[in-house]
Amino acid sequence: MKGLLKIIFLLLLPVLMQAQHPVTFFTKTEAVSVKASLLKYPLLKSSYTDLKKDVDQWIGKDVDVPFPKDPAGGYTHDKHKANYTLMFNSGVLYNLTGDVKYAKLVKDMMLKYAALNPTLKNHPEATSSSPGRIFWQALNDANWMVYTGMAYDLIYNSLTSAERKKIEDGAFKPEVDFFTHDLKDWFNLIHNHAVWATAGVGMIGIATNNQDYIDMALYGTEKDGKRGFIALMDNLFSPDGYYTEGPYYTRYAILPYAVFANALNNWKPSLKIFQHRNSILQKALLTCLQQTNIDGTFFPFNDALKEKDFTSNELVVAINTFWKAYGADKNLLPVAKKQNRVMLSSGGVAIAAELATNKNIPAYYNYKTFESTDGVKGDEGGISVFRNGKGQDLTSLLYKYTAHGLSHGHYDKLGIMLYDKGNEILTNYGSVRFIGVEQKYGGRYLAENKAYAGQTIAHNTIVVDETSHFNGKESIAENFHSDKLFSSISNPTVQVVAAKEDNAYKNTHMQRTLYMLELPENKKMIVDLFNVESDKEHQYDLPFQYNGHLINTSFKYKANTDKQETLGNKNGYQYIWNEAEAKVENTTAQITFLNDRSYYSISSLIDGSAKIFLTRTGANDPDFNLRHEPAMIIRKNGKNQSFINVIEIHGNFDPVYEFSSNAYPSVKEIKLLQQDENYTVAEVSLGDKKLIIAQCNKNFDTKQVHSAGTLNWTGPFVVIYDGKIL
Amino acid sequence: MKGLLKIIFLLLLPVLMQAQHPVTFFTKTEAVSVKASLLKYPLLKSSYTDLKKDVDQWIGKDVDVPFPKDPAGGYTHDKHKANYTLMFNSGVLYNLTGDVKYAKLVKDMMLKYAALNPTLKNHPEATSSSPGRIFWQALNDANWMVYTGMAYDLIYNSLTSAERKKIEDGAFKPEVDFFTHDLKDWFNLIHNHAVWATAGVGMIGIATNNQDYIDMALYGTEKDGKRGFIALMDNLFSPDGYYTEGPYYTRYAILPYAVFANALNNWKPSLKIFQHRNSILQKALLTCLQQTNIDGTFFPFNDALKEKDFTSNELVVAINTFWKAYGADKNLLPVAKKQNRVMLSSGGVAIAAELATNKNIPAYYNYKTFESTDGVKGDEGGISVFRNGKGQDLTSLLYKYTAHGLSHGHYDKLGIMLYDKGNEILTNYGSVRFIGVEQKYGGRYLAENKAYAGQTIAHNTIVVDETSHFNGKESIAENFHSDKLFSSISNPTVQVVAAKEDNAYKNTHMQRTLYMLELPENKKMIVDLFNVESDKEHQYDLPFQYNGHLINTSFKYKANTDKQETLGNKNGYQYIWNEAEAKVENTTAQITFLNDRSYYSISSLIDGSAKIFLTRTGANDPDFNLRHEPAMIIRKNGKNQSFINVIEIHGNFDPVYEFSSNAYPSVKEIKLLQQDENYTVAEVSLGDKKLIIAQCNKNFDTKQVHSAGTLNWTGPFVVIYDGKIL
Repeated sequence: MKGLLKIIFLLLLPVLMQAQHPVTFFTKTEAVSVKASLLKYPLLKSSYTDLKKDVDQWIGKDVDVPFPKDPAGGYTHDKHKANYTLMFNSGVLYNLTGDVKYAKLVKDMMLKYAALNPTLKNHPEATSSSPGRIFWQALNDANWMVYTGMAYDLIYNSLTSAERKKIEDGAFKPEVDFFTHDLKDWFNLIHNHAVWATAGVGMIGIATNNQDYIDMALYGTEKDGKRGFIALMDNLFSPDGYYTEGPYYTRYAILPYAVFANALNNWKPSLKIFQHRNSILQKALLTCLQQTNIDGTFFPFNDALKEKDFTSNELVVAINTFWKAYGADKNLLPVAKKQNRVMLSSGGVAIAAELATNKNIPAYYNYKTFESTDGVKGDEGGISVFRNGKGQDLTSLLYKYTAHGLSHGHYDKLGIMLYDKGNEILTNYGSVRFIGVEQKYGGRYLAENKAYAGQTIAHNTIVVDETSHFNGKESIAENFHSDKLFSSISNPTVQVVAAKEDNAYKNTHMQRTLYMLELPENKKMIVDLFNVESDKEHQYDLPFQYNGHLINTSFKYKANTDKQETLGNKNGYQYIWNEAEAKVENTTAQITFLNDRSYYSISSLIDGSAKIFLTRTGANDPDFNLRHEPAMIIRKNGKNQSFINVIEIHGNFDPVYEFSSNAYPSVKEIKLLQQDENYTVAEVSLGDKKLIIAQCNKNFDTKQVHSAGTLNWTGPFVVIYDGKIL
Repeated sequence: MKGLLKIIFLLLLPVLMQAQHPVTFFTKTEAVSVKASLLKYPLLKSSYTDLKKDVDQWIGKDVDVPFPKDPAGGYTHDKHKANYTLMFNSGVLYNLTGDVKYAKLVKDMMLKYAALNPTLKNHPEATSSSPGRIFWQALNDANWMVYTGMAYDLIYNSLTSAERKKIEDGAFKPEVDFFTHDLKDWFNLIHNHAVWATAGVGMIGIATNNQDYIDMALYGTEKDGKRGFIALMDNLFSPDGYYTEGPYYTRYAILPYAVFANALNNWKPSLKIFQHRNSILQKALLTCLQQTNIDGTFFPFNDALKEKDFTSNELVVAINTFWKAYGADKNLLPVAKKQNRVMLSSGGVAIAAELATNKNIPAYYNYKTFESTDGVKGDEGGISVFRNGKGQDLTSLLYKYTAHGLSHGHYDKLGIMLYDKGNEILTNYGSVRFIGVEQKYGGRYLAENKAYAGQTIAHNTIVVDETSHFNGKESIAENFHSDKLFSSISNPTVQVVAAKEDNAYKNTHMQRTLYMLELPENKKMIVDLFNVESDKEHQYDLPFQYNGHLINTSFKYKANTDKQETLGNKNGYQYIWNEAEAKVENTTAQITFLNDRSYYSISSLIDGSAKIFLTRTGANDPDFNLRHEPAMIIRKNGKNQSFINVIEIHGNFDPVYEFSSNAYPSVKEIKLLQQDENYTVAEVSLGDKKLIIAQCNKNFDTKQVHSAGTLNWTGPFVVIYDGKIL
């Protein structure tokens, strides 16, 4: 009998829970426990006080719900954005204080939306194929749905049936119908926008007890599971949690994942949504955090605004939500501390409690060397991030051999970046966009974003014949990915990764191997072996975009001192001023630049003849949208070419003591002893010592024995310094 | 009888004290008290431990005293520099520990110098008219003398008479003779180099009990007091403590002043050297500190390296020395805290004690609005520094109407700079020099320093006919100075200063008045009325060098997008790329730029026609010595012209929240209602409110009643906002 009751109870549970409100942001039980802690911990208290202050100024006021008119940055856009935040926050306060004035504020606004929304057509400023109605793009309407859905759920119990009907039919139905009919194709995409769209429809579904909405949200408009939120969990991340658009967009996508998964988990725990696909959401967060600089800014893989960092609201929500969903992770505390605010949820309470008592929170996130695959199955290349050093002295070398990265992808197969001591050293431009600055095209992506920042020449990888990878065409690029050949990351003194790219250019094989070495006396050095082979003669350009002041070059150049022209006229070259050029022959060409208090040198083997350009961005930029940043570009011609470069981090410059130490590169000469289909052997003279790197180019078995010249070794590579294997 | 004894004792005192050692850096009594405190206070302990560690590594080693060969940055230069620091530090340790190993280290090195110095001729790398012997320039030899003199005094008691004779005759006499005979003219200069030279000779005089040396040091080689250290105290600073070369060089000069004054004060307190000229050294320090940005970097009046800040050793020595000499000044604690080290002297002990116990040290120095005269008599113009805001939110407006500033002077009469929230907003270039970077011409001033950075166009003031003030000739410029006409700094909402310059160009009168206003709602605004009158037609260029990313202009311009040329070909113009130019007519031309998280707008009255250039430095720079920095240059032609500009600090940009507020300038229109020899009346429309500024151009009496148009007021100016006098 007892057993039977239990079964009946379990069968009824989902039904019972569906009827419970609130359930999206938190449950009644959770709200009670948050309320009990509100004043206990400083960060929770300040987060609560800030939120209450924001809301309280609107109590008793007639909040404007304007007819949509302006694009991003304009009044109606900003007002509707502020409105959904206000409704959500006020809904939270209603549950934490019990004061009906907060419910009333939300209700009054929602009734205005209930009157407005049925009258809306596509937004007058809509330009994209996914127009919005309240906003200029549907994406913002989805944001509105997520927050307004939660707000509705939060005040559900305070409403009469008549009010509920008015709001559900007036405010929500037109939006849900618009998304699931008019914008069905967009809603059903496998794309970060669809995460917002499905979360929006699903949130409204849970809030309004509408199973149809929930099913479409979870499984697509056809409800067959090929589309929708679950499919988006299955198909947007690699099994390691890498998001193909890059960490800047992981950040963007993770918020709707987190809030809707949280709502789903409250509503139907049996879905085990957080555990789905081996806890993919947790992996996404952790992989995203590893892809940040020590100041918290996201690495600019693909489109990315470099100022954006992990204190952004999306990561506050993700960390606070996952703290509860996946359990406490003390590694997140340095991030939570810098975020300096928490959500008014049980995750937020737990974090605030931890921050109030834990005196041993490290200054930086726990950065590690890591590799991550790209592609849903993890078979579409990936990234390697090598790290060396601790705290402020961390060096991070980034290598990208991923798939394209959807519409935000950049054409930079085998591209690298370098960070050191918190500074960008070898850079990608990032995005040409001033988000939040209305004067700059309403804060949207600017024309130079695709035309320059996305092009290959804006990155640190080879450009063939002044044409970007895949001719700069997304439709082609999205069919291919680079491949890792081998890597080794277990030995901190020799971290190595090799990858190849065969599709960026027709009949052209590119293979780049990066060695990040720590030589004795803490000498940090990167050896970069980049080989390109083709069936025809080509021009190969390898840029090093650097961040710093040029201090010295080992070669003579002709500077364009009183007249300047662009380096080329297409594929990004038209944005680059040619400041100086050099013809170099059979030498080791070196430049040294100074960034902050460190010197950096690039030494490049010039076997035969080559040109070196010293350039700066900013040409063909009539609206002054670009930053003016320098690069060194090495140009070689031929069928097959090897670019052997050594990048050194060295010395110290103290402008207050007016003193430099170790200001010169230690590389004296680079030789390529062997380069063929089997082996690459390079020798770098460092003062009176020699560094020898030998690698196999086609057999990457770790147990295979090789010999080249006088060298014998096992496995895909060997690094020898001063006669000893490192 | 008792009285008689007292008189005899007092008469004998100076003689007795002269024979006492140590006396230069500290006395025996002071050393005892420092020793007793060494481990008491964290900062004293760490300063002691650091110093001891540096010295201990040399104990028992044969320290190289190489034959001089290299210029700055080379081995022999750096070694001799390290050597005098080592001898001084080891001498201090000898007195604090009593351990003879420290005395022996100094003695052994000094005996090497005693052997070396008599063999030296002018340094092989000497290029200036004041060559050195141990170093490439005499200035460095003077540094050596100051520190080695102190070191000798510190170990004096440990030496035998024979050793003393050897060192005094061998190490010191050749240097003193060289300075006081061969370099007599240089030694007798009224110039910061002579402060070092006289301090060097004087320090050796005190250390070796040589009254002849001391007298030459104090009163010049002729001992008539027209030259020498006292004359340098009388003639290098204005009565307010302003140093005509600027604060970057106050910093440089103040160390020898401080250490030699300290030695003199110990040796002969009756000189009351610190009280000389109304405590001029204390004024010099405080005026220098007021001329820093909130990050401690010195304002770049004249030649200055912008990275240099008040944590430099010279200001550690000055603050530690003056703490004892002038008594505790708690305003100095924020600076001492950032310096994060103290001297092992009683001043250092007192500061370390204060830092260990005082929990209320402000984050920033006590910055205030101030004005300072230039010129020994205070009658050669000066500077005004207006301030508004607290802490991180401080705004500083700098106005320079000084004399020329000796060999480090820039040609920028009536030039302005603006700092806000710790950032440079309207900038001077500073110096073109990479001090401490050997690859950049041994760290010396680069050619572009005089050719660009010192020229008028590199500043924010009017250039007539593309020719710098005084035709860029120091010999002419040093005969003149600008003059303040009136100022008012007591009302924080209206700070105003007017100055004129009549000599920079022939028959040309320039008059600039700056109003720094705080309007209601914390709106910060600068109104800049710059009038120029000449007997002939001229071209007038007024640049605003700004630091930020251009966001918007109110006017159309023609951008030089695929080819760039220089703005001119001489007087600094050849270093400037002409990026874009506009013809504007009868309008209020506006630009807005973004720096960090704030917007800045310049609105400029264009009465008639004008050109506006958008430019960037970096042309004609084959060695990549220049930074690439933007400017807006307003060009007008005519005999008389008025430049009426309003500079606004407004809004907020948050890249993490992706949100801007108040991103547009509030100025709608500027009108010049009256401009004649009697009055200037300008009207600025700010939304629906009007700001009216009226000033008298020739009668600056604060009680004079004026009327112009419908306005009546008393005193040199009136500012009216929204109908009310501010």
